[in-house]
Amino acid sequence: MNNKPVVNAGASDPASHETNPLPILWGATDPAKRGPIIATLSDPQRRNVLGVHGGQFSLSRSMAVAAGMYDPTKKPDLYDTYPTDVIGPFPQWFEPGKIVTLDPFGANVTETFADLIAGGYDIRPTIAVTRAYIRPLEIREAVIAGRLEVDGSILKAEDERRNGEATGRVSYACPVTEIAIDPVWHLPGVADRLGISELDLRRTLVEQTGGMFPDLVTRRDLQVFLPPIGQTLVIIFGDAKKLSDPKTTVTVRVHDACIGSDVLSSDVCCCRPYLTHAFEECVRCAQQGGVGVIVYFDKEGRGLGAVTKLMVYNRRKRQPGGDTAAQYFACTEQVAGFRDARFQQFMPDPLHWLGLHRIRLVSMSNDKYDAIIRSGIEVIERIEIPAELIPADAHVEIEAKKADGYFTMDVTSNVTKLDEVRGRTFLT
Amino acid sequence: MNNKPVVNAGASDPASHETNPLPILWGATDPAKRGPIIATLSDPQRRNVLGVHGGQFSLSRSMAVAAGMYDPTKKPDLYDTYPTDVIGPFPQWFEPGKIVTLDPFGANVTETFADLIAGGYDIRPTIAVTRAYIRPLEIREAVIAGRLEVDGSILKAEDERRNGEATGRVSYACPVTEIAIDPVWHLPGVADRLGISELDLRRTLVEQTGGMFPDLVTRRDLQVFLPPIGQTLVIIFGDAKKLSDPKTTVTVRVHDACIGSDVLSSDVCCCRPYLTHAFEECVRCAQQGGVGVIVYFDKEGRGLGAVTKLMVYNRRKRQPGGDTAAQYFACTEQVAGFRDARFQQFMPDPLHWLGLHRIRLVSMSNDKYDAIIRSGIEVIERIEIPAELIPADAHVEIEAKKADGYFTMDVTSNVTKLDEVRGRTFLT
Repeated sequence: MNNKPVVNAGASDPASHETNPLPILWGATDPAKRGPIIATLSDPQRRNVLGVHGGQFSLSRSMAVAAGMYDPTKKPDLYDTYPTDVIGPFPQWFEPGKIVTLDPFGANVTETFADLIAGGYDIRPTIAVTRAYIRPLEIREAVIAGRLEVDGSILKAEDERRNGEATGRVSYACPVTEIAIDPVWHLPGVADRLGISELDLRRTLVEQTGGMFPDLVTRRDLQVFLPPIGQTLVIIFGDAKKLSDPKTTVTVRVHDACIGSDVLSSDVCCCRPYLTHAFEECVRCAQQGGVGVIVYFDKEGRGLGAVTKLMVYNRRKRQPGGDTAAQYFACTEQVAGFRDARFQQFMPDPLHWLGLHRIRLVSMSNDKYDAIIRSGIEVIERIEIPAELIPADAHVEIEAKKADGYFTMDVTSNVTKLDEVRGRTFLT
Repeated sequence: MNNKPVVNAGASDPASHETNPLPILWGATDPAKRGPIIATLSDPQRRNVLGVHGGQFSLSRSMAVAAGMYDPTKKPDLYDTYPTDVIGPFPQWFEPGKIVTLDPFGANVTETFADLIAGGYDIRPTIAVTRAYIRPLEIREAVIAGRLEVDGSILKAEDERRNGEATGRVSYACPVTEIAIDPVWHLPGVADRLGISELDLRRTLVEQTGGMFPDLVTRRDLQVFLPPIGQTLVIIFGDAKKLSDPKTTVTVRVHDACIGSDVLSSDVCCCRPYLTHAFEECVRCAQQGGVGVIVYFDKEGRGLGAVTKLMVYNRRKRQPGGDTAAQYFACTEQVAGFRDARFQQFMPDPLHWLGLHRIRLVSMSNDKYDAIIRSGIEVIERIEIPAELIPADAHVEIEAKKADGYFTMDVTSNVTKLDEVRGRTFLT
């Protein structure tokens, strides 16, 4: 090992008891009173949270230290990395219990906590905000089909060039604001929202992960935890500054990642078709002066992960009588032990961070709808996936969900016989 | 809380010292001698590893227990979830140090360890294997452009139907085998491959994650660790049974996830265009009697995560003189502290699990190429991304990488002036 490891970086080390880390007063309006999130290890005694930056990627950073590739005592140079768009502050940032799974002050720490950083504190962003051009082929198809119009601003047509020369092909691109959010949990708030005690939450998280972060139990003085899970992405179509104007119409899809559909376009579910339909809705909304928002959560396979999800597919396809909508949920419950681990009650947090009060919702999920309205956001319209976008094999999923309470205007859905809605077998 | 939590599930609990868990003899040919991976918590004394199933998704499962949604003592019903395709065993499974980050016996545990399961052991798969139909629009474009031909088997044309009636639109679908792999690390093997001592690895993993799994240090008798990181997907075009035949031509892309491009088709990098080019190469290879393989790793932003990645974009776009290929790597190093955390030396593990010896490689990465050939797999051809697939703004990335050692047949690349290869600003 080339780099001497930082000794005693674990929060429970006695050395860290010698100092009083800066307090975090979650929900405080003044960021100086709220206090910075200090999850870095370059000066362990100043840490005031459990866990480290980067979610699940903290493991690969740790391996880089182990392999001598990276000096953990070196502070990164964050010059010019500040957000391209300023988000907030909004009143919801300071309503008790409104945001408990991200740090509302996480994007602009180099400015917000400039004095502390100048004084030697190693404070890093938990949110990054940039701009991007996105060009999904479904946008091209929508233009060609006449469903979307090029306006030169929200939706641009560009000659594709090769070595500086036009290829004769046109690409259709949307400039967007792209945001990445690391998980930052306020443990009392997370426990409250689950309706359990904070100690039960802490103890069960340790026990049910086989001993991950025992400091959750031993360091109850630390109330903030950066867990090793995935990051959340936010994509904004149109002018992000308009988010704070209550007159702005905002179209939102809250999407849970599904690599099989989102990347590969597998036909067993509607995930990518619904996502790309949301792109269309967002583009149209922004073209009419509103803003479109996609929030993309890393909750593969209903938060159960891909291994469980693929085993459920096998069970569905092999059952006597074949894959039917009637058995859709039962298969997951049998294989996984429960049917969903996405915890939609935390999903509205990024919406409150964006300052939203009233939205058009591109989702049929009753769980998502309920979570959003319970959190105090008004849903003025619910937008179904158009029937023609549902892949043939995905009718099993969508009919099962409609029967289970998903929103639909489809008047035939309440007379659909779920055991007659069938999917492919493995052989066809 | 409705469910009484399992008490003392952490591996370091004294109660678990009272029994001798089944040993794991990593690399043993006979699965009975190798021993099962027991990461479940339903009977903590039988656990013989550190960590639990599901990678990063173990956190949401733990929350489900905390919320009383899930009884952790209940064993799941894995009936009919077994793999659709049998992978291996292959000789590489048993070569010392060849596979250290997944469990080669992880797919078919219900059969392999049937006796133990019948005797009450709670053993679960770490690998799932199913079949899927994928229909990315880039495949449609390739058919329309004449680059791919429908053969009715590897690539099918299907009338799209709505409510049972043809819509007049044809979709182009590929039946594939889809595999999900949970991380299972053999710690001595992981340390060996990093060239460090096992104790240094264990200690640094605990310290640099701020105290995650201190049992890594205190329970050195347990050599296997299921870390809370992402899962790996494998997609196989063509007949998976042919993988074991050394005469089979196998085309492989090893792809690191990039949600911005893979899902959104952002134009700042080549990730999705290269991935969909690999789909084409895989289809053609399978149509000629070979097999195509995509391995999709959850290593967003070079394993540094999305927050760091987006901050690097800001730095690149804002530097004096604009975004240039000359500064491409320097920006990442300055912002992140190092340029890559993907650890390609572990990337070949799934290839060895598939039994591969000779491949055509759809990647220009020298790091990936070096890792594959060092692991003993022959690369008979390297396939560049066609120039016309590179988005305009992504030339900065690709020229920087070519100058840094990426494979290319482009004879102009060694005279390219890197400070003249420029990307967009935020304003255009």
